[in-house]
Amino acid sequence: MKKILLIGAGRSTLFLIEYIEQHAAAENWELTVADRDQHMIDAHVKSDKTRKTLLDISDSHHLEKLVSDHDLVVSMLPAHMHMSVARYCLQYKKHLCTASYLTDEMKALDPEVKKAGLVFLNEMGLDPGLDHLSAMKLLDKLREGGNHILEFESFTGGLIAPESEDNPWKYKFTWNPRNVVLAGQGGAVKFIQNGMYKFIPYHKLFRRTEIIEIDKYGKFEGYANRDSLKYRETYGLQDVQTMYRGTLRRPGFCRAWDLFVQLGATDDSYVLPDSENMTHRDFINTFLAYNIHDSVEIKLRQYLKIDQDDVDLWEKLEWLDVFTHEKVGLKDATPAQVLEHILKKKWSLKTEDKDMIVMWHKVVFEDQHKNTVHINSSTVVKGEPGERTAMAKTVGLPLALGCRMILEEKVKQTGTILPITKDIYTPVLAELEKFNIRFTETITS
Amino acid sequence: MKKILLIGAGRSTLFLIEYIEQHAAAENWELTVADRDQHMIDAHVKSDKTRKTLLDISDSHHLEKLVSDHDLVVSMLPAHMHMSVARYCLQYKKHLCTASYLTDEMKALDPEVKKAGLVFLNEMGLDPGLDHLSAMKLLDKLREGGNHILEFESFTGGLIAPESEDNPWKYKFTWNPRNVVLAGQGGAVKFIQNGMYKFIPYHKLFRRTEIIEIDKYGKFEGYANRDSLKYRETYGLQDVQTMYRGTLRRPGFCRAWDLFVQLGATDDSYVLPDSENMTHRDFINTFLAYNIHDSVEIKLRQYLKIDQDDVDLWEKLEWLDVFTHEKVGLKDATPAQVLEHILKKKWSLKTEDKDMIVMWHKVVFEDQHKNTVHINSSTVVKGEPGERTAMAKTVGLPLALGCRMILEEKVKQTGTILPITKDIYTPVLAELEKFNIRFTETITS
Repeated sequence: MKKILLIGAGRSTLFLIEYIEQHAAAENWELTVADRDQHMIDAHVKSDKTRKTLLDISDSHHLEKLVSDHDLVVSMLPAHMHMSVARYCLQYKKHLCTASYLTDEMKALDPEVKKAGLVFLNEMGLDPGLDHLSAMKLLDKLREGGNHILEFESFTGGLIAPESEDNPWKYKFTWNPRNVVLAGQGGAVKFIQNGMYKFIPYHKLFRRTEIIEIDKYGKFEGYANRDSLKYRETYGLQDVQTMYRGTLRRPGFCRAWDLFVQLGATDDSYVLPDSENMTHRDFINTFLAYNIHDSVEIKLRQYLKIDQDDVDLWEKLEWLDVFTHEKVGLKDATPAQVLEHILKKKWSLKTEDKDMIVMWHKVVFEDQHKNTVHINSSTVVKGEPGERTAMAKTVGLPLALGCRMILEEKVKQTGTILPITKDIYTPVLAELEKFNIRFTETITS
Repeated sequence: MKKILLIGAGRSTLFLIEYIEQHAAAENWELTVADRDQHMIDAHVKSDKTRKTLLDISDSHHLEKLVSDHDLVVSMLPAHMHMSVARYCLQYKKHLCTASYLTDEMKALDPEVKKAGLVFLNEMGLDPGLDHLSAMKLLDKLREGGNHILEFESFTGGLIAPESEDNPWKYKFTWNPRNVVLAGQGGAVKFIQNGMYKFIPYHKLFRRTEIIEIDKYGKFEGYANRDSLKYRETYGLQDVQTMYRGTLRRPGFCRAWDLFVQLGATDDSYVLPDSENMTHRDFINTFLAYNIHDSVEIKLRQYLKIDQDDVDLWEKLEWLDVFTHEKVGLKDATPAQVLEHILKKKWSLKTEDKDMIVMWHKVVFEDQHKNTVHINSSTVVKGEPGERTAMAKTVGLPLALGCRMILEEKVKQTGTILPITKDIYTPVLAELEKFNIRFTETITS
């Protein structure tokens, strides 16, 4: 009997729990789901074999006891909370699996984790996760064929299905809204293009987009992720000339989003005085110069140089009700929190809405005959209305399969690892195909 | 005999040391100048009565001994180093004087400083310092006359004298260049205008300027300082409708400086790869999109929307040699450090150059007859070529006079205080007039 502990039973654990429950009998697994919220647990646990535990993560005795009673822990806690779980895993010699970025702090445990013969598998969700699995499969195949990789680009987007694109942004929140509002903050974007290092400050990020096209789904625009450079080493692409990772939206989104960036409306570093009694209109006006005669609209147009006939851009703003006299009603809020609050009123999924995950890789390589070849690999995953979203599926299934591989002792390395080796990506990607998560490759010379 | 210890003997201590030395015999003062650099000490100490001490600030035993041997300490160390000095001052019951902003950490010492009957006088230089002295004199006079203050604005600029304005920026470094490059960073600008809170993000700061004019000196432009709001309380202007503090440059400076901000060239948060071997041109190019055919100039124009006929703006850039193939030659440098390095080559004062300090206050008040009245108060201080700069004078003399008043026991309050009370500003401003630092008032109804 192998005992799995899942800490955190939020929306993206639906497919994870389902997969483990469906295979529990055959694989001889026992699952415990722990969360601080009983409703979350009850909503996602389907099997009466699964144990349910209310857990306050600040109760370290309870956490310690839980970890010590299991063989493998999946932490779906916010990223900064993984370390306390990781330390108990190390102490009691338990494996660990997360969908979060491998931090320096976690990495520092590597020698101890190795010594204990454990696997701490990180970045095993969608992005990071599925991007690594699919990119490494493609890159390794090309390298094994004797090709030399020149350029690598990779974009992922958590979007809505075309049939749910019923607003001018062609976007709704399908993921943590706070992270969407704060995306791109916290340091300059770094990448390399044709051998030249390139840096983009936050206030220019959403104007430096790239258009990509995916068969049957049309055009998307991508903006760069924070640090593409560090993945050169991860992917074994130290001498690659172009390395660029980014996030996808529908064309036009970024230019409109940039208006909020320019205003300073995404700032999370200070609290707005009396935010509770502000209207949406006051919120926009607080970033504009004082003028008793001019309207908020004309001041905004003038400040951000929005032409009178730029109707697509303007429609997006108006549709969000940012010029209305509706009260914000949020106490002691930062600009980012107020903006998130306003956006949630409009960008929430309706009952019938479906989300959609788009992932796209581009590799340029030189083949053995010195020909330059372009190859694209992409996948589009559509969700179902309700909780069975593409996001929950593409985050939860890689995690579930990671757990399975660890418990079946099929992961060859020990330590704090990423899913970038063949022993992991081959079986995981094969299994994901059964769930209709498959990549299509297109080659152009 | 009263013993004064000056820690830090940099450029802005020239007038401070001179004033104390000239009055030492009559006032029965003894001065010790401590610095880690013997040359700095020798350059500024003129009297053979003044004691000189080499001090490594990390040698806490030496620091402790020095503080305990004196009656008053002037700390001209970088702001973050004042606290270790302050703690010894408290332990050995010595007064303290600095030209730096009163930090929360320093403020927290207030009860203990009061209990010990000591004066820790902060913000006693130019800005902060002379701005407080002159603003409070004006505000108190108006309030005592039964007027109600409606608006307060205050701008200070460390500039060059008109006769030295021989470059298109009409600017040279007359102060710590690093602080000039980083000015405005670290959080949104906050002020209040006509009762409305206003916030400006860093990337818009240099496009939200205000033009002011000073008789005989022409026009200046001002950009906002970080947090104007907190001075409402300091100045007793809790219900003021407009509170705005800023920094002065010559018109056109800010719009051109904004180009560096837009590029991300003032970012101090990451190191540029191989900065040593970059050329000035490479530096600009690293912030621009890759394109093998287009020149750096055309890419910059397109990216930052600089019109072909915007010759004033373009001249400023070209004059700085930012497009040349000159090597940066600075190892492991951040963008801000590279930019500072490039600017220093062009913005350094020549032997014959004079600097100039401009300070300007505007107060709008309602008089007893309900008339709205505008009053301006301003001063312009020109330096002499060489070390006798207006900057050194306007920073050093307020400090020297602050020390004098503390030693003469003319400062009525104890604790961690600012120079905002009549007992301080009246005699200090009167004494400053002897050095030709005087304010001119203009009233318009």
